[in-house]
Amino acid sequence: MDIVQSTLKRITPVSEELLQQAQARLDNKTKPLGSLGRLEEFARRMAAISGSPEPDMTKKIIFTFAGDHGVTEEGVSAFPKEVTPQMVFNFLAGGAGINVLARHAGAEVRVVDVGVDYDFGDTAGLINRKVARGTRNFAKGPAMSEAEMLAALQVGIELADQCKAEGVALVGTGEMGIGNTTPSSAIIAAISGIPVQELTHRGTGINNEALQHKIRVIETGLALNKPDPQNPLDVLAKVGGLEIAAIAGLVLGCAANSIPVVIDGFISTAGALIASELHPNVRDYIFAAHESVEIGHRFMLERIGAAPILDLGLRLGEGTGAALAMTMIEAGVKILKEMATFDQAGVAKG
Amino acid sequence: MDIVQSTLKRITPVSEELLQQAQARLDNKTKPLGSLGRLEEFARRMAAISGSPEPDMTKKIIFTFAGDHGVTEEGVSAFPKEVTPQMVFNFLAGGAGINVLARHAGAEVRVVDVGVDYDFGDTAGLINRKVARGTRNFAKGPAMSEAEMLAALQVGIELADQCKAEGVALVGTGEMGIGNTTPSSAIIAAISGIPVQELTHRGTGINNEALQHKIRVIETGLALNKPDPQNPLDVLAKVGGLEIAAIAGLVLGCAANSIPVVIDGFISTAGALIASELHPNVRDYIFAAHESVEIGHRFMLERIGAAPILDLGLRLGEGTGAALAMTMIEAGVKILKEMATFDQAGVAKG
Repeated sequence: MDIVQSTLKRITPVSEELLQQAQARLDNKTKPLGSLGRLEEFARRMAAISGSPEPDMTKKIIFTFAGDHGVTEEGVSAFPKEVTPQMVFNFLAGGAGINVLARHAGAEVRVVDVGVDYDFGDTAGLINRKVARGTRNFAKGPAMSEAEMLAALQVGIELADQCKAEGVALVGTGEMGIGNTTPSSAIIAAISGIPVQELTHRGTGINNEALQHKIRVIETGLALNKPDPQNPLDVLAKVGGLEIAAIAGLVLGCAANSIPVVIDGFISTAGALIASELHPNVRDYIFAAHESVEIGHRFMLERIGAAPILDLGLRLGEGTGAALAMTMIEAGVKILKEMATFDQAGVAKG
Repeated sequence: MDIVQSTLKRITPVSEELLQQAQARLDNKTKPLGSLGRLEEFARRMAAISGSPEPDMTKKIIFTFAGDHGVTEEGVSAFPKEVTPQMVFNFLAGGAGINVLARHAGAEVRVVDVGVDYDFGDTAGLINRKVARGTRNFAKGPAMSEAEMLAALQVGIELADQCKAEGVALVGTGEMGIGNTTPSSAIIAAISGIPVQELTHRGTGINNEALQHKIRVIETGLALNKPDPQNPLDVLAKVGGLEIAAIAGLVLGCAANSIPVVIDGFISTAGALIASELHPNVRDYIFAAHESVEIGHRFMLERIGAAPILDLGLRLGEGTGAALAMTMIEAGVKILKEMATFDQAGVAKG
């Protein structure tokens, strides 16, 4: 547990004084007080987290973690498992949704194999941090060993440390893993104690019968593995996923390095939930990209205490919502950096 | 009424066939069906409105119309009327919120004086289409004559015609006019018949007492002028504003020229409401940028039948919400243009 404990020790609250200083600067801009709503929240948080009154926004990175899930053998997904590596190649070729939207946001996509059940060899552009060829079927036993879970968590932490060294302004999370809404629902059910059926959505296009089956699979897995709700890492290992663990590590690492992190949808938020359960100040560094159509997502966001930036009916994952939300966060920062004050513009205050 | 009737005659429904063709192309992209939610709506509507399967998005323009309001002499605003011309100079200098956010969206801002109570002379960069030096106080009589209202409407229509000639891909609306939430509330009250107190917000920072006063002023104006709810142009002339009329004209003109138009917040939507009451297919061309904190706004949007794209607690106006929403619409178009199909990427369909 060394890497986790040492990372948790580095996490500090975001300075209330810096937040107030940034808001005071916003209040001098040529607009009625507070009239740019959440853009002002984004601006003051970015200033306070970065420690700069005019945060540089040049370098934005979205990490798309890929991993497979043993639980797919229960038939919980409408897509075959082979789609995970196929989509990894699509990411690397620049043709996926996340590539399009990250380009739109001026962000770089880094694709990380943390647990795909496929041998990529020396595929150019892919960050090879494979911990295992997928998780095991959590309906029959724990998804990961503690060592696997910690190794995947460490991948995320180390990538965050590297972002600090590179001067990254804003990190986004994303994922690809056929079947990964199932462990995400299991995580929020285990941590919140809310019944699985209230938390479980159809995922990417399964019908009602398949939904009931998915609920039964999750209930079976929870009953069998008995994850300890007081121990987020136990929940993560027993019913989580390798890419979810890497996201949890990335979010922890961002908090430890004072890097703001935009979490994408349902699966990313499952990872962020694990991280935020481990330390109360992790949430200070989190921006919730959007409200997913996945039912369990709002329970996660409430528990983290994060209000989603967008509500566009997205349910693709990959980091697509994070890319879109980055454009809103950057808009807020530009207000802070570029907008004229009442004095500068010669405009009367109300 | 010639200019209005001839413009209305040019408005046609957006092709259902083109909408379906665009959706069919989206359904071949490497993602579960419908998983990009409203981005797919933006993409197919942009394709169908423009008549191009891959809409060019190069030229985006936001028109910020400025006008003054005689009703400010009733003390309905927290800001002095002098702020209207001061903010016009701020727009022209590039320091206002709309300038920052339009640059962020890659859009040009065009500032139009349609009714400011100030002599700008030959101010560089300002489009001088002044109809009058502000409206008259509608608590004491009609805000505009029919001729003034039609002249302001014509300004908007002509600017839309010019956009067609320039090949503009996407138009946004914006406004600046101290006191202009008051006529906007009056417009939705007159058209919907909903009591003024249910529709009226504090505007930019007035207190409770001032709010009650604002409600009484609007009620007085409606009782005195008796605008005909069946006649949107009568409502516009009697309790509207010159910049609101120009926005109504711009929206009408965009519909007539098959140009998609993003309407900003409360005041812009009042203009768009007038336009959409005049012809049922105007709404086919409207994108509602955001949900304003102004209470009356949701009633307007419901009546138009438009779902807001963003909900960020904005209440600045100027076109700021339209600029932000443009980035989401363009993201949708890029999905259509840049994302790989299942065949191209070698990915299995679900």
